[in-house]
Amino acid sequence: MTDVDEATLTARLMLSWLFEPGSKAVHFLVAKHGPQEALNRVLRGLVPEDLHGPAASRLQGEDPAAVAERLFADANRLGVRIVVPESQDWPSTLDDLSRISVDTKKDRIERDTFPPHALWVRGTLPLMDLPSRAVSIVGARAASGYGLHMAADIAYGLSSRGWTVISGGAYGIDAAAHRGALAGTEFGGSTVAVLACGVDRPYPVAHQGLFEQIVQSGLLISEWPPSAHPYRNRFLIRNRVIAALSRGTVLVEASARSGARFTLRRARELGRPTMVVPGPATSANFIGNHEILRTEVTARLVTNAAQVIEDAGPIGEFAELARGPIRPFDHLSSVEQQLVDAAPRRDGALASQIAAEAGIGLREALAILPSLAVRGYLHRTADGRYCLLT
Amino acid sequence: MTDVDEATLTARLMLSWLFEPGSKAVHFLVAKHGPQEALNRVLRGLVPEDLHGPAASRLQGEDPAAVAERLFADANRLGVRIVVPESQDWPSTLDDLSRISVDTKKDRIERDTFPPHALWVRGTLPLMDLPSRAVSIVGARAASGYGLHMAADIAYGLSSRGWTVISGGAYGIDAAAHRGALAGTEFGGSTVAVLACGVDRPYPVAHQGLFEQIVQSGLLISEWPPSAHPYRNRFLIRNRVIAALSRGTVLVEASARSGARFTLRRARELGRPTMVVPGPATSANFIGNHEILRTEVTARLVTNAAQVIEDAGPIGEFAELARGPIRPFDHLSSVEQQLVDAAPRRDGALASQIAAEAGIGLREALAILPSLAVRGYLHRTADGRYCLLT
Repeated sequence: MTDVDEATLTARLMLSWLFEPGSKAVHFLVAKHGPQEALNRVLRGLVPEDLHGPAASRLQGEDPAAVAERLFADANRLGVRIVVPESQDWPSTLDDLSRISVDTKKDRIERDTFPPHALWVRGTLPLMDLPSRAVSIVGARAASGYGLHMAADIAYGLSSRGWTVISGGAYGIDAAAHRGALAGTEFGGSTVAVLACGVDRPYPVAHQGLFEQIVQSGLLISEWPPSAHPYRNRFLIRNRVIAALSRGTVLVEASARSGARFTLRRARELGRPTMVVPGPATSANFIGNHEILRTEVTARLVTNAAQVIEDAGPIGEFAELARGPIRPFDHLSSVEQQLVDAAPRRDGALASQIAAEAGIGLREALAILPSLAVRGYLHRTADGRYCLLT
Repeated sequence: MTDVDEATLTARLMLSWLFEPGSKAVHFLVAKHGPQEALNRVLRGLVPEDLHGPAASRLQGEDPAAVAERLFADANRLGVRIVVPESQDWPSTLDDLSRISVDTKKDRIERDTFPPHALWVRGTLPLMDLPSRAVSIVGARAASGYGLHMAADIAYGLSSRGWTVISGGAYGIDAAAHRGALAGTEFGGSTVAVLACGVDRPYPVAHQGLFEQIVQSGLLISEWPPSAHPYRNRFLIRNRVIAALSRGTVLVEASARSGARFTLRRARELGRPTMVVPGPATSANFIGNHEILRTEVTARLVTNAAQVIEDAGPIGEFAELARGPIRPFDHLSSVEQQLVDAAPRRDGALASQIAAEAGIGLREALAILPSLAVRGYLHRTADGRYCLLT
């Protein structure tokens, strides 16, 4: 907090309190006049109705200075840092949100998706470096056992390789991802929950313990001030922050309607890697996953943390290709395989018979059969015949 | 058979008997001299050692005319049609195999993959039209219950829409695909098994009943003459025919090592659509599926027959997008949603309070709240307050 002058900090804080996040109009007002003059114009009513209306509604005649004082007092009381775009600790990747253009008519969110003006942060982990080594993991609340396993498994794999996991604070995939990541923090990883309500307000209440655990090594983050309610529409607008804070986003489990699909869409709009875990085609819980893998050419299928790092990480970190075990016959050339195939199991056959059956020239067969016997693929009888078994 | 002159038919039959299928050298010999002169040169030894050797090996001094007579007699006795490239019933898509180039050094098959010279066919279904409305379904023998279900389900969906299913004759995915397709034949579909052994030789033996059932409405096809053994290397070379006989190939279940992946590769080399069913990332049985979906940009994820037809069928047959149920809140605009979110459950709040909480201008809120009440999203109390419940 201390690296930003108080007037700027106060202006950012008030702008973030006066307006719901994401507003394009507020963003451009600040871009044009700077945060202090922008706030000044809002408070003096020198802005169009689409800005004046909401601000007046929220302020309801209260003294702005008193509101700011209350917000700072809340932050102090709760041990919450306030990070604004002028802070050294501001993650610059959030500014990428000003460059995505969402068609508000076509988007289910129907809201502008511009960067936050302030983040309320619990936890000591620096925010600034987060995006260089963080991956977002998102998915449904009513998740399957398989989905929960995959979220925890991938999150643990990332965390135990020193990566940070970013997710929301909901039941299901969010919680499984945090728990998986927490299990790997001893190896340098951490986990971050981006909430759609005040960071002092555990939602769901059952996650109070989980959130306290997250704060020990990671962060709780919100765009809304303490005590803000987790309204339905706030989850969808919050998702753009989850996408913008990481190198890429993994969708673990999403039905045809899951809001998690929108987080993945934001990641795609930001030009970040989008990754999707496959699931059973028979489960409605994975219709969203499969629809995206089927229709979005940029979405990449992932099955483990190594692949996630290959896709989201710096160039050069490649997951090992699954090869399966090497089997004895792998060492045979095609012609050798044809000869072994054509040899009888027992009661040896002449080289000419085997060559005929295999469709190989006799000269070639005579050159190869002894080597197959030496290498143990065939047995050579005392009278020079060949078979499979001794 | 009757539409091809006997000399040509005999020549094709003998070439297919003398050489294992797929040979590039034989293909170009026939392309240059025609089948009769090509056979003549082979029998007179006027060809290089790589052709002379195998032919001499197989013939072993037998009279070629006697061999041909025996092959025709076998065909008659078993009720098997012989279809050659000169037949009217020859599916011309098989000729596409002469245009794919397989790097025999890098390919696990290490064999040329040129078109067959003859097909031995049981069943009355015309071959010629097959590829215009057929899809191949391939996968592992040791398949999971889920994979078997998906194979049968997709095959039934295709068959009951009048499509033909093409597969091998093995346990697992092959058999499940045939059984699924057979269940839909009353709607105009059929199923075709392409074998790696003689069509008179059920392999595996337990599938004798299945093969007889297939012949009733569909086809058994082989490149090898009756009584030919199903050698290991023949399955891999056979796969190119499965790929070339259909509009596209669906891989249902494949471990990291499954040979079914090579059928999909042939389809890709032929420029035909390649489709892959997703499965649980926790199962080794689907490592092949996921590796292909992850690394092959042309492979398309499919979860049902409608999607398969969308991908493989004539342009314009589109699967319906999975949308999920429409929910009450879907009909709200974002601003309406913000106002509903901000209304208390009971004990109504003033419009100005709701507007403040929602971050919406009072004038806008006053314009929208009555409509939300009329439409039943909010309750309006006698004194003009709003809440969620009556």
